[in-house]
Amino acid sequence: MSASLQVSIRRFAPADWTQLWPLLRATFEAGDTYAYAPDSREADIRTTWTEAPAATFVACGPGEQVIGTYFIKANQPGLGSHVCNCGYVVAPVAQGRGIAAALCEHSQREAVEMGFRAMQFNLVVSTNERAVRLWQRLGFKIVGTLPRAFHHRQLGYVDALVFYKELVT
Amino acid sequence: MSASLQVSIRRFAPADWTQLWPLLRATFEAGDTYAYAPDSREADIRTTWTEAPAATFVACGPGEQVIGTYFIKANQPGLGSHVCNCGYVVAPVAQGRGIAAALCEHSQREAVEMGFRAMQFNLVVSTNERAVRLWQRLGFKIVGTLPRAFHHRQLGYVDALVFYKELVT
Repeated sequence: MSASLQVSIRRFAPADWTQLWPLLRATFEAGDTYAYAPDSREADIRTTWTEAPAATFVACGPGEQVIGTYFIKANQPGLGSHVCNCGYVVAPVAQGRGIAAALCEHSQREAVEMGFRAMQFNLVVSTNERAVRLWQRLGFKIVGTLPRAFHHRQLGYVDALVFYKELVT
Repeated sequence: MSASLQVSIRRFAPADWTQLWPLLRATFEAGDTYAYAPDSREADIRTTWTEAPAATFVACGPGEQVIGTYFIKANQPGLGSHVCNCGYVVAPVAQGRGIAAALCEHSQREAVEMGFRAMQFNLVVSTNERAVRLWQRLGFKIVGTLPRAFHHRQLGYVDALVFYKELVT
Protein backbone atom coordinates (compact mmCIF):
# COMPACT_ATOMS: atom_id res chain seq x y z
CA MET A 1 0.00 0.00 0.00
CA SER A 2 1.32 3.43 -0.96
CA ALA A 3 1.38 6.38 1.37
CA SER A 4 -2.05 7.75 2.15
CA LEU A 5 -3.23 10.75 0.19
CA GLN A 6 -4.76 13.88 1.65
CA VAL A 7 -8.32 14.05 0.39
CA SER A 8 -11.41 16.04 1.13
CA ILE A 9 -14.85 14.54 0.67
CA ARG A 10 -17.69 16.87 -0.21
CA ARG A 11 -21.04 16.93 -2.00
CA PHE A 12 -20.97 16.53 -5.77
CA ALA A 13 -21.52 19.78 -7.68
CA PRO A 14 -22.54 19.92 -11.38
CA ALA A 15 -19.14 21.40 -12.27
CA ASP A 16 -17.53 18.13 -11.10
CA TRP A 17 -19.16 16.12 -13.86
CA THR A 18 -16.46 16.78 -16.46
CA GLN A 19 -13.96 15.11 -14.13
CA LEU A 20 -16.33 12.49 -12.80
CA TRP A 21 -17.59 11.05 -16.07
CA PRO A 22 -14.20 9.81 -17.38
CA LEU A 23 -13.62 8.12 -14.02
CA LEU A 24 -17.00 6.37 -14.07
CA ARG A 25 -16.79 5.52 -17.76
CA ALA A 26 -13.40 3.86 -17.38
CA THR A 27 -14.65 1.88 -14.38
CA PHE A 28 -17.81 0.62 -16.08
CA GLU A 29 -16.03 -0.08 -19.39
CA ALA A 30 -13.76 -2.53 -17.61
CA GLY A 31 -16.84 -4.64 -16.85
CA ASP A 32 -15.34 -6.26 -13.78
CA THR A 33 -16.92 -4.44 -10.82
CA TYR A 34 -20.23 -2.78 -11.73
CA ALA A 35 -23.25 -4.07 -13.63
CA TYR A 36 -23.77 -0.86 -15.62
CA ALA A 37 -23.35 -1.75 -19.27
CA PRO A 38 -19.75 -1.15 -20.41
CA ASP A 39 -21.09 1.05 -23.23
CA SER A 40 -23.48 3.04 -21.01
CA ARG A 41 -24.37 6.49 -22.27
CA GLU A 42 -23.12 9.52 -20.40
CA ALA A 43 -26.61 10.96 -19.82
CA ASP A 44 -27.87 7.70 -18.31
CA ILE A 45 -24.92 7.37 -15.96
CA ARG A 46 -25.19 11.01 -14.94
CA THR A 47 -28.80 10.39 -13.93
CA THR A 48 -28.00 7.12 -12.21
CA TRP A 49 -25.01 8.40 -10.25
CA THR A 50 -25.85 12.04 -9.53
CA GLU A 51 -29.61 12.57 -9.83
CA ALA A 52 -31.46 9.41 -8.84
CA PRO A 53 -29.59 8.90 -5.53
CA ALA A 54 -30.41 10.76 -2.34
CA ALA A 55 -26.89 12.25 -2.38
CA THR A 56 -23.62 11.99 -4.28
CA PHE A 57 -20.16 12.83 -2.96
CA VAL A 58 -16.72 13.29 -4.47
CA ALA A 59 -13.27 12.81 -2.98
CA CYS A 60 -10.84 15.50 -4.10
CA GLY A 61 -7.08 15.31 -4.01
CA PRO A 62 -4.60 18.15 -4.45
CA GLY A 63 -5.81 20.86 -6.83
CA GLU A 64 -9.44 19.78 -6.55
CA GLN A 65 -8.76 16.72 -8.68
CA VAL A 66 -11.70 14.30 -8.39
CA ILE A 67 -10.20 10.95 -7.43
CA GLY A 68 -13.20 9.16 -6.01
CA THR A 69 -16.96 9.27 -5.63
CA TYR A 70 -19.91 7.57 -4.03
CA PHE A 71 -23.69 7.77 -4.07
CA ILE A 72 -26.15 6.91 -1.34
CA LYS A 73 -29.83 6.04 -1.76
CA ALA A 74 -32.57 3.94 -0.23
CA ASN A 75 -32.20 0.35 -1.39
CA GLN A 76 -35.95 -0.30 -1.40
CA PRO A 77 -39.09 1.85 -1.21
CA GLY A 78 -41.31 2.38 1.83
CA LEU A 79 -40.99 -0.46 4.29
CA GLY A 80 -37.46 -1.24 3.14
CA SER A 81 -36.28 2.35 2.89
CA HIS A 82 -34.41 2.28 6.21
CA VAL A 83 -31.67 0.29 4.44
CA CYS A 84 -29.42 2.29 2.14
CA ASN A 85 -27.31 1.30 -0.82
CA CYS A 86 -24.06 2.93 -1.89
CA GLY A 87 -21.73 2.64 -4.87
CA TYR A 88 -18.08 3.71 -4.72
CA VAL A 89 -15.53 4.40 -7.43
CA VAL A 90 -11.87 5.34 -6.98
CA ALA A 91 -9.58 6.50 -9.79
CA PRO A 92 -7.00 3.84 -10.74
CA VAL A 93 -4.15 6.27 -10.00
CA ALA A 94 -5.43 6.74 -6.45
CA GLN A 95 -6.10 3.10 -5.57
CA GLY A 96 -4.36 1.42 -2.66
CA ARG A 97 -4.23 4.63 -0.68
CA GLY A 98 -7.22 4.27 1.56
CA ILE A 99 -9.63 6.35 -0.52
CA ALA A 100 -12.29 3.66 -0.80
CA ALA A 101 -12.15 3.07 2.94
CA ALA A 102 -12.41 6.81 3.59
CA LEU A 103 -15.41 7.05 1.25
CA CYS A 104 -17.14 4.09 2.86
CA GLU A 105 -16.58 5.38 6.39
CA HIS A 106 -17.86 8.79 5.29
CA SER A 107 -20.92 7.18 3.73
CA GLN A 108 -21.73 5.29 6.92
CA ARG A 109 -21.73 8.50 8.92
CA GLU A 110 -23.86 10.23 6.28
CA ALA A 111 -26.23 7.26 6.25
CA VAL A 112 -26.86 7.51 9.97
CA GLU A 113 -27.37 11.26 9.73
CA MET A 114 -29.86 10.70 6.92
CA GLY A 115 -31.79 8.27 9.11
CA PHE A 116 -30.75 4.96 7.56
CA ARG A 117 -30.35 1.99 9.90
CA ALA A 118 -28.33 -0.36 7.71
CA MET A 119 -26.30 -0.44 4.49
CA GLN A 120 -26.54 -3.10 1.79
CA PHE A 121 -24.40 -3.80 -1.29
CA ASN A 122 -26.48 -5.85 -3.69
CA LEU A 123 -23.97 -7.12 -6.22
CA VAL A 124 -20.33 -7.23 -5.18
CA VAL A 125 -18.44 -9.20 -7.80
CA SER A 126 -16.88 -12.19 -6.05
CA THR A 127 -13.67 -11.88 -8.08
CA ASN A 128 -13.20 -8.26 -6.94
CA GLU A 129 -10.97 -9.39 -4.08
CA ARG A 130 -9.88 -5.92 -3.10
CA ALA A 131 -13.49 -4.86 -2.49
CA VAL A 132 -14.45 -8.11 -0.77
CA ARG A 133 -11.57 -7.73 1.70
CA LEU A 134 -12.20 -4.05 2.28
CA TRP A 135 -15.92 -4.35 3.02
CA GLN A 136 -15.22 -7.12 5.48
CA ARG A 137 -12.50 -5.09 7.17
CA LEU A 138 -15.03 -2.25 7.54
CA GLY A 139 -17.51 -4.48 9.34
CA PHE A 140 -19.76 -5.61 6.50
CA LYS A 141 -20.89 -9.23 6.48
CA ILE A 142 -21.47 -11.40 3.44
CA VAL A 143 -25.14 -12.26 3.90
CA GLY A 144 -25.78 -13.80 0.50
CA THR A 145 -24.18 -15.38 -2.56
CA LEU A 146 -25.85 -15.06 -5.98
CA PRO A 147 -24.69 -17.86 -8.28
CA ARG A 148 -23.30 -16.58 -11.60
CA ALA A 149 -25.25 -13.32 -11.19
CA PHE A 150 -22.52 -11.15 -12.74
CA HIS A 151 -21.39 -11.40 -16.35
CA HIS A 152 -17.72 -10.46 -15.98
CA ARG A 153 -16.28 -9.05 -19.17
CA GLN A 154 -13.17 -11.26 -18.99
CA LEU A 155 -14.23 -14.19 -16.84
CA GLY A 156 -17.81 -14.81 -17.97
CA TYR A 157 -20.49 -15.61 -15.37
CA VAL A 158 -19.17 -15.30 -11.82
CA ASP A 159 -20.87 -15.23 -8.44
CA ALA A 160 -21.91 -11.97 -6.82
CA LEU A 161 -22.06 -11.31 -3.08
CA VAL A 162 -24.53 -9.40 -0.95
CA PHE A 163 -22.92 -7.39 1.86
CA TYR A 164 -24.80 -5.92 4.79
CA LYS A 165 -23.98 -3.84 7.84
CA GLU A 166 -26.33 -2.65 10.54
CA LEU A 167 -25.47 0.94 11.43
CA VAL A 168 -28.00 1.40 14.22
CA THR A 169 -28.82 -1.38 16.66
CA MET B 1 -56.15 -26.05 0.58
CA SER B 2 -59.34 -25.42 -1.32
CA ALA B 3 -60.10 -26.84 -4.72
CA SER B 4 -58.01 -25.42 -7.49
CA LEU B 5 -59.54 -22.68 -9.59
CA GLN B 6 -59.55 -22.53 -13.37
CA VAL B 7 -57.50 -19.51 -14.35
CA SER B 8 -56.03 -18.10 -17.50
CA ILE B 9 -52.83 -16.09 -17.41
CA ARG B 10 -52.35 -13.42 -20.04
CA ARG B 11 -50.57 -10.11 -20.63
CA PHE B 12 -51.85 -7.13 -18.68
CA ALA B 13 -53.96 -4.71 -20.76
CA PRO B 14 -54.72 -1.11 -19.71
CA ALA B 15 -58.40 -2.00 -19.23
CA ASP B 16 -57.35 -4.37 -16.42
CA TRP B 17 -56.10 -1.56 -14.23
CA THR B 18 -59.49 -0.80 -12.63
CA GLN B 19 -59.51 -4.34 -11.29
CA LEU B 20 -55.78 -4.55 -10.61
CA TRP B 21 -55.34 -1.43 -8.54
CA PRO B 22 -57.69 -2.41 -5.66
CA LEU B 23 -55.89 -5.75 -5.49
CA LEU B 24 -52.43 -4.16 -5.32
CA ARG B 25 -53.55 -1.37 -2.99
CA ALA B 26 -55.01 -3.82 -0.48
CA THR B 27 -51.84 -5.92 -0.61
CA PHE B 28 -49.47 -3.02 -0.07
CA GLU B 29 -51.69 -1.38 2.57
CA ALA B 30 -51.33 -4.48 4.71
CA GLY B 31 -47.60 -3.77 4.94
CA ASP B 32 -46.63 -7.36 5.56
CA THR B 33 -45.32 -8.64 2.21
CA TYR B 34 -44.12 -5.80 -0.06
CA ALA B 35 -41.91 -2.81 0.64
CA TYR B 36 -44.06 -0.37 -1.36
CA ALA B 37 -45.28 2.26 1.08
CA PRO B 38 -48.72 1.32 2.45
CA ASP B 39 -50.02 4.72 1.34
CA SER B 40 -48.48 4.54 -2.15
CA ARG B 41 -50.20 6.63 -4.79
CA GLU B 42 -52.07 4.93 -7.59
CA ALA B 43 -50.04 6.59 -10.36
CA ASP B 44 -46.74 5.50 -8.81
CA ILE B 45 -47.84 1.90 -8.40
CA ARG B 46 -49.24 1.81 -11.92
CA THR B 47 -45.83 2.88 -13.23
CA THR B 48 -43.96 0.48 -10.97
CA TRP B 49 -46.14 -2.55 -11.69
CA THR B 50 -47.22 -2.11 -15.30
CA GLU B 51 -44.85 0.30 -17.06
CA ALA B 52 -41.34 -0.01 -15.61
CA PRO B 53 -41.19 -3.84 -15.84
CA ALA B 54 -40.37 -5.71 -19.05
CA ALA B 55 -43.81 -7.36 -18.88
CA THR B 56 -46.84 -7.63 -16.61
CA PHE B 57 -49.36 -10.49 -16.54
CA VAL B 58 -52.74 -11.04 -14.94
CA ALA B 59 -54.46 -14.23 -13.84
CA CYS B 60 -58.16 -14.20 -14.64
CA GLY B 61 -60.81 -16.36 -13.07
CA PRO B 62 -64.38 -16.90 -14.25
CA GLY B 63 -65.89 -13.85 -15.93
CA GLU B 64 -62.49 -12.27 -16.59
CA GLN B 65 -62.15 -11.38 -12.92
CA VAL B 66 -58.53 -10.40 -12.19
CA ILE B 67 -57.44 -12.55 -9.25
CA GLY B 68 -53.69 -12.37 -9.55
CA THR B 69 -50.80 -10.63 -11.24
CA TYR B 70 -47.06 -10.59 -11.66
CA PHE B 71 -44.38 -8.45 -13.28
CA ILE B 72 -41.04 -9.48 -14.67
CA LYS B 73 -37.99 -7.27 -15.20
CA ALA B 74 -34.22 -7.38 -15.19
CA ASN B 75 -32.96 -7.21 -11.61
CA GLN B 76 -29.82 -5.26 -12.52
CA PRO B 77 -28.62 -3.34 -15.59
CA GLY B 78 -26.08 -4.53 -18.15
CA LEU B 79 -23.80 -7.20 -16.75
CA GLY B 80 -26.44 -8.32 -14.25
CA SER B 81 -29.38 -8.17 -16.64
CA HIS B 82 -29.46 -11.94 -17.24
CA VAL B 83 -31.08 -12.31 -13.82
CA CYS B 84 -34.73 -11.32 -13.62
CA ASN B 85 -36.89 -10.21 -10.75
CA CYS B 86 -40.62 -10.85 -10.37
CA GLY B 87 -43.33 -9.74 -7.99
CA TYR B 88 -46.58 -11.67 -7.50
CA VAL B 89 -49.90 -10.73 -5.94
CA VAL B 90 -52.94 -12.95 -5.50
CA ALA B 91 -56.35 -11.71 -4.36
CA PRO B 92 -57.17 -12.77 -0.79
CA VAL B 93 -60.34 -14.52 -1.99
CA ALA B 94 -58.29 -16.66 -4.36
CA GLN B 95 -55.46 -17.64 -2.02
CA GLY B 96 -54.69 -21.25 -1.19
CA ARG B 97 -55.81 -22.41 -4.64
CA GLY B 98 -52.51 -22.67 -6.44
CA ILE B 99 -52.68 -19.30 -8.18
CA ALA B 100 -49.33 -18.05 -6.88
CA ALA B 101 -47.67 -21.31 -7.93
CA ALA B 102 -49.27 -21.08 -11.38
CA LEU B 103 -48.10 -17.48 -11.74
CA CYS B 104 -44.56 -18.34 -10.65
CA GLU B 105 -44.32 -21.32 -12.99
CA HIS B 106 -45.68 -19.17 -15.81
CA SER B 107 -43.11 -16.47 -15.01
CA GLN B 108 -40.24 -18.96 -15.12
CA ARG B 109 -41.25 -20.07 -18.62
CA GLU B 110 -41.62 -16.45 -19.74
CA ALA B 111 -38.25 -15.61 -18.19
CA VAL B 112 -36.48 -18.28 -20.22
CA GLU B 113 -38.25 -17.19 -23.39
CA MET B 114 -37.18 -13.61 -22.71
CA GLY B 115 -33.58 -14.75 -22.39
CA PHE B 116 -33.13 -14.60 -18.62
CA ARG B 117 -30.90 -17.22 -17.02
CA ALA B 118 -31.95 -16.92 -13.38
CA MET B 119 -34.64 -15.39 -11.17
CA GLN B 120 -34.06 -13.50 -7.94
CA PHE B 121 -36.45 -12.26 -5.24
CA ASN B 122 -34.70 -9.48 -3.34
CA LEU B 123 -36.85 -8.98 -0.27
CA VAL B 124 -39.09 -11.86 0.77
CA VAL B 125 -40.42 -11.07 4.23
CA SER B 126 -39.27 -13.84 6.56
CA THR B 127 -42.59 -13.89 8.39
CA ASN B 128 -44.49 -14.49 5.13
CA GLU B 129 -44.42 -18.23 5.70
CA ARG B 130 -46.75 -19.07 2.86
CA ALA B 131 -44.41 -17.42 0.34
CA VAL B 132 -41.26 -18.84 1.92
CA ARG B 133 -42.66 -22.39 1.68
CA LEU B 134 -43.98 -21.91 -1.84
CA TRP B 135 -40.77 -20.53 -3.35
CA GLN B 136 -38.80 -23.38 -1.83
CA ARG B 137 -41.29 -25.92 -3.18
CA LEU B 138 -40.85 -24.37 -6.64
CA GLY B 139 -37.09 -24.87 -6.53
CA PHE B 140 -35.89 -21.50 -5.26
CA LYS B 141 -33.09 -21.45 -2.71
CA ILE B 142 -32.63 -18.98 0.13
CA VAL B 143 -29.25 -17.50 -0.78
CA GLY B 144 -29.25 -14.62 1.67
CA THR B 145 -30.75 -13.23 4.86
CA LEU B 146 -31.01 -9.47 5.41
CA PRO B 147 -31.22 -8.68 9.11
CA ARG B 148 -34.24 -6.51 10.01
CA ALA B 149 -34.42 -5.23 6.42
CA PHE B 150 -38.23 -5.09 6.33
CA HIS B 151 -40.33 -2.79 8.50
CA HIS B 152 -43.41 -4.95 8.99
CA ARG B 153 -46.50 -2.89 9.75
CA GLN B 154 -47.51 -5.10 12.68
CA LEU B 155 -44.29 -6.77 13.76
CA GLY B 156 -41.72 -3.99 13.35
CA TYR B 157 -38.30 -4.78 11.91
CA VAL B 158 -38.09 -8.36 10.65
CA ASP B 159 -35.55 -10.21 8.50
CA ALA B 160 -35.95 -10.45 4.75
CA LEU B 161 -34.75 -13.32 2.58
CA VAL B 162 -33.14 -13.38 -0.85
CA PHE B 163 -34.36 -16.25 -3.06
CA TYR B 164 -32.62 -17.39 -6.23
CA LYS B 165 -33.21 -19.99 -8.90
CA GLU B 166 -31.07 -20.71 -11.92
CA LEU B 167 -33.35 -21.33 -14.90
CA VAL B 168 -30.64 -22.16 -17.43
CA THR B 169 -27.55 -24.13 -16.47
